Amino acid sequence: MVFFDCDYNNGCHPAVLKRLGETNGEYTSTYGFDRFSDSAREKIRAAANDPDAGVFFLAGGTQANSTVIDSMLEPWQGVVSADTGHINVHEAGAVEYTGHKVFSLPSGEGENAGKIIPKALEDFLAGWHSDETCDHMAEPALVYISFPTELGTIYKAAELKEIHDICHRFGARLFVDGARLAYGLASKESDVDLPFLASHCDAFYIGGTKCGALCGEAVVFPKGRVPAHFFTRVKQHGALLAKGRLIGVQFDALFTDGLYTEIGKHADGLAAKIPVLFEKYGVGKVFAPSPTNQQFILVRRDAMEALKKDVCFEKWAPAEGGYDLCRFVTSWATADCDMESLENILKAL
Amino acid sequence: MVFFDCDYNNGCHPAVLKRLGETNGEYTSTYGFDRFSDSAREKIRAAANDPDAGVFFLAGGTQANSTVIDSMLEPWQGVVSADTGHINVHEAGAVEYTGHKVFSLPSGEGENAGKIIPKALEDFLAGWHSDETCDHMAEPALVYISFPTELGTIYKAAELKEIHDICHRFGARLFVDGARLAYGLASKESDVDLPFLASHCDAFYIGGTKCGALCGEAVVFPKGRVPAHFFTRVKQHGALLAKGRLIGVQFDALFTDGLYTEIGKHADGLAAKIPVLFEKYGVGKVFAPSPTNQQFILVRRDAMEALKKDVCFEKWAPAEGGYDLCRFVTSWATADCDMESLENILKAL
Amino acid sequence: MVFFDCDYNNGCHPAVLKRLGETNGEYTSTYGFDRFSDSAREKIRAAANDPDAGVFFLAGGTQANSTVIDSMLEPWQGVVSADTGHINVHEAGAVEYTGHKVFSLPSGEGENAGKIIPKALEDFLAGWHSDETCDHMAEPALVYISFPTELGTIYKAAELKEIHDICHRFGARLFVDGARLAYGLASKESDVDLPFLASHCDAFYIGGTKCGALCGEAVVFPKGRVPAHFFTRVKQHGALLAKGRLIGVQFDALFTDGLYTEIGKHADGLAAKIPVLFEKYGVGKVFAPSPTNQQFILVRRDAMEALKKDVCFEKWAPAEGGYDLCRFVTSWATADCDMESLENILKAL
Amino acid sequence: MVFFDCDYNNGCHPAVLKRLGETNGEYTSTYGFDRFSDSAREKIRAAANDPDAGVFFLAGGTQANSTVIDSMLEPWQGVVSADTGHINVHEAGAVEYTGHKVFSLPSGEGENAGKIIPKALEDFLAGWHSDETCDHMAEPALVYISFPTELGTIYKAAELKEIHDICHRFGARLFVDGARLAYGLASKESDVDLPFLASHCDAFYIGGTKCGALCGEAVVFPKGRVPAHFFTRVKQHGALLAKGRLIGVQFDALFTDGLYTEIGKHADGLAAKIPVLFEKYGVGKVFAPSPTNQQFILVRRDAMEALKKDVCFEKWAPAEGGYDLCRFVTSWATADCDMESLENILKAL
Repeated sequence: MVFFDCDYNNGCHPAVLKRLGETNGEYTSTYGFDRFSDSAREKIRAAANDPDAGVFFLAGGTQANSTVIDSMLEPWQGVVSADTGHINVHEAGAVEYTGHKVFSLPSGEGENAGKIIPKALEDFLAGWHSDETCDHMAEPALVYISFPTELGTIYKAAELKEIHDICHRFGARLFVDGARLAYGLASKESDVDLPFLASHCDAFYIGGTKCGALCGEAVVFPKGRVPAHFFTRVKQHGALLAKGRLIGVQFDALFTDGLYTEIGKHADGLAAKIPVLFEKYGVGKVFAPSPTNQQFILVRRDAMEALKKDVCFEKWAPAEGGYDLCRFVTSWATADCDMESLENILKAL
Repeated sequence: MVFFDCDYNNGCHPAVLKRLGETNGEYTSTYGFDRFSDSAREKIRAAANDPDAGVFFLAGGTQANSTVIDSMLEPWQGVVSADTGHINVHEAGAVEYTGHKVFSLPSGEGENAGKIIPKALEDFLAGWHSDETCDHMAEPALVYISFPTELGTIYKAAELKEIHDICHRFGARLFVDGARLAYGLASKESDVDLPFLASHCDAFYIGGTKCGALCGEAVVFPKGRVPAHFFTRVKQHGALLAKGRLIGVQFDALFTDGLYTEIGKHADGLAAKIPVLFEKYGVGKVFAPSPTNQQFILVRRDAMEALKKDVCFEKWAPAEGGYDLCRFVTSWATADCDMESLENILKAL
Repeated sequence: MVFFDCDYNNGCHPAVLKRLGETNGEYTSTYGFDRFSDSAREKIRAAANDPDAGVFFLAGGTQANSTVIDSMLEPWQGVVSADTGHINVHEAGAVEYTGHKVFSLPSGEGENAGKIIPKALEDFLAGWHSDETCDHMAEPALVYISFPTELGTIYKAAELKEIHDICHRFGARLFVDGARLAYGLASKESDVDLPFLASHCDAFYIGGTKCGALCGEAVVFPKGRVPAHFFTRVKQHGALLAKGRLIGVQFDALFTDGLYTEIGKHADGLAAKIPVLFEKYGVGKVFAPSPTNQQFILVRRDAMEALKKDVCFEKWAPAEGGYDLCRFVTSWATADCDMESLENILKAL
Repeated sequence: MVFFDCDYNNGCHPAVLKRLGETNGEYTSTYGFDRFSDSAREKIRAAANDPDAGVFFLAGGTQANSTVIDSMLEPWQGVVSADTGHINVHEAGAVEYTGHKVFSLPSGEGENAGKIIPKALEDFLAGWHSDETCDHMAEPALVYISFPTELGTIYKAAELKEIHDICHRFGARLFVDGARLAYGLASKESDVDLPFLASHCDAFYIGGTKCGALCGEAVVFPKGRVPAHFFTRVKQHGALLAKGRLIGVQFDALFTDGLYTEIGKHADGLAAKIPVLFEKYGVGKVFAPSPTNQQFILVRRDAMEALKKDVCFEKWAPAEGGYDLCRFVTSWATADCDMESLENILKAL
């Protein structure tokens, strides 16, 4: 069996595990005030070229999204998301559970799949602000995008800047879900780096869980603009780890010697081969081109059964013309031999 | 000045006022346990041909919507609405404020403007239930429609039945916002009456505020299927009136001698003349045909200024081709002479 | 039967009813932007000697409490109340429902029954702020008191000032529930008037429902310090009346020709006779002395049955020594003849 | 420096770390459906002698408390806690944040410090249910206790049974916070074991974070009585780990070869020496006797400064008579040499 079902089906990168072992016996402060977390924060600030950034470690993506969004919004405000956005679909209504509306905009198509289109955002915000009844409406005060998106696509630097500008023009802010940030930043097609990201949004997080850690996301508030009483909000959301070092140590390892970048490059590189193989052997074709570690393939329905015997992957939805839309994902744990196995399996179908 | 801005810009129908005066000096029980509220409940049950119906009196539409929806949903569930639905737009995110997601479906066009299209609802619910990741998603367990809709249109009996059937096929329930129910039931084009409505949904309310009362909506749970501890939920939502009789007395009057029906007929009849007049004098044209008391007219932009001097109405949005989309509304208080005034004003433009 | 069960068991004061009738036929703006509401606001500002006060009309007490408290607090903050406070007991957890903790302090005894004791408040706030773990705790940022309290007692001007000072010393604010404000201000023992109240708290409301209106409470934010986007918060709480005039007209009447004061004096004057009568005829004795319209009497248990046949009142709790704690309440509707009836009934027991 | 500040100031027990390393490279299912989590669940079921128990792994104590409490309560219900209970004080109002009232009862004194007294609970619940206005009140439907309590004390088996019986007599349920369960079960004074606990409450959790894991609490619903859609509720609370194995692996290790019990015994044994040492050298005296790993000592104020130089511990509050109330805690990481160090330090003061 070869595994392409997701990027969190394994343990952590060996370098992360090693660091957890090395630091295990040391006494530290609690709740994230330990020296490992401090060190990780400093490394992240350096990598983002933002010495004043506020950095907080949370355990997972849905938790980071709902805690950050809730803390950045006033109670009468809501957040704008692509309709395919993770917060709009796969988080069990966690944002609404804290009282905030999710406004959804149609996501783009093709290479814009999963993305908010700047013009559509501008029209939406302009329409809201020119509506005379807007006092009767939740206010769209935050925009949520994912980098990369849930469909593996990425925003170009110019698009990111444009969206950020639009947000600020309408008194809104921009929050970037970076659950798979390593794969976005490392993509060959990306012209966005961490300093650019940090200077073109109001909050983002650096995904750990899906990028080589056992758990953990590093929430970053650029330029020190941390929401009021954020520590208490984290606690209130049940998101404060007593042994905060657990995540601090891991990010300290991920941001040592370029490991985070290396993990992204490795997985992106292998992932790029997947659509090539599917097309080469006629088993499937590309749904929307992805430059990151998630590949969406329209797999021939008549090949699904056989494929499933040897390959672990996710079927997303039935598609037209006898295909099923499927997702194939790589990670730090995907090896060259896994690609060879995949090729042999596809060849034999 | 002639007033077509809305149906709540006046006091209450004289018969309602009279009844408030007659009953004012009497001692009663509180919190809706008074004899006037009891009498109104009995009249509503009789009119709906549902002797077991649970009937509760709330003060306004947003309050009724958010209290009923919150009480009918489990905490992990959400409600489906047309994107134009009142709860999705004009209630300040009140449903989300109680923790529930609003799933929005595109509303129809033309005579289906403001309506959920049964096929689209079926596809949405079927898709949700066949999604293997649905445990990670809020559950669409309630469907919210308005009768008439926010755009004045109405569902035919067959459509209502179809939507109700679809809901139940997918374990969901149907809630009908009847803020303007009088105008829907009394419409010449309606084949829905109160007993049909009561037997084809799981909850609805009979609008008072916009149909001749000073305040108040009568929430009805057919066949006695009242959400658990609904009285306490009403209190928790700040929606329990100490002098519950205030609304009971008004509904007792509205459901005496056919007054509620009469108010609807009166307003619908006058409203039907509005598009005729606009087209007759070339000042505007119909946007979407409405058989109820709200008329949506595309008014010639060059006539707007002059029209506003003498007529009170709402501009909804700019439209193409030199028009503005405007709303004109009648109520119990609209008189024949108001229509004559409107005609004279349009003629003179 | 003579009625002392509560102060909301009747309609509204005749002068209020009259005004509702006189204004009924007039077209107005909606949502509280009508000329009657404007007039009422001006009269309230004048009576409070606070020309900049923000004034909003809500429908009931629980609604006013939960909407104001939620709007004055940040999401990580809570409100301090006496354990007997209405928000802590009889509002179905409405404050917690909007996400805020209610911190309860033991209420005083005797003439301090129902009151927060300034020293206890100071100790609590000082303790909280000196706790090194306070970042892990909800912050007590608002203090809620009732004037009069749920037990009919009132704060002296000096106490009110002391509590207000304590609040501000600890960065908290003071909110006064005035559901029965008329009876507090009119009390012979009160040295607090409306201008004093308005200048010694951060928000309060002038009760209408229990003081002669059909419904409605006038929420006042002294010196124009209205919480951000309060209008939208009111809507979000389901508390915005479309026909806002309904409450505006009533408060306009209540604040014309001293009616509000007169109602308070009338009811307080009659209420003062109740304990005298009970003691005179040996049927009961005073529980805690009340200078307002609610009287708490320890009624002889062996007299309860007979008393209930002719008098409508509430039993609150069993007490020691063969007594039941009962409440007797007067209102605008209580007449001299009701007092005579009560005396005759007690005499005959 | 010797560390007695808390039981989460170190990494995990070496056996837990070892198991994380051994399992790191294996592909597994996600979200807790992996074979390590399955194995841990089976071991916990066996240890609790409850083959049908539902077992879920959450990351921390506040998260477990707020997720479980919210999921066990209906929206109109609240939870009863000792006033010293963790949910009532140190969780930033997380329970209220999900909409539920926390009813607080005074905790006991001496060996009952931190505990709910059965008689007080019974009186409270009986009073609530006999109150005729209870429909206007949040319903106390769940009772929260900690084992051991926040003050280190434990409930005897008979008390636990009595509290459980009282809960059920009034339609309420019992939830036991076991953040430090290892230390409670292993206490020499405890007559409660895991099967007894599992059969005398409706939910509890087995603390990992404070008992030798890096993170994680095992929530147990005895007899398979899992709240509806609990998996989705966990997700909605941001509490679902993508790599659920992280906690599964740790609990698998903790419940292998009696490790969990051993950790408790070890820490309790060392902790028992702390008050002896303080009294022996006259530096402090016992505040409330604790049979578990947390010791509360009244430390002579004049010795505080010197003590702090060499010992890491928490000051809780100033006390009378020239003392400060301080907490000293042991864990798996506390060694015999730490006790010797403490003795030497105390001796030298």
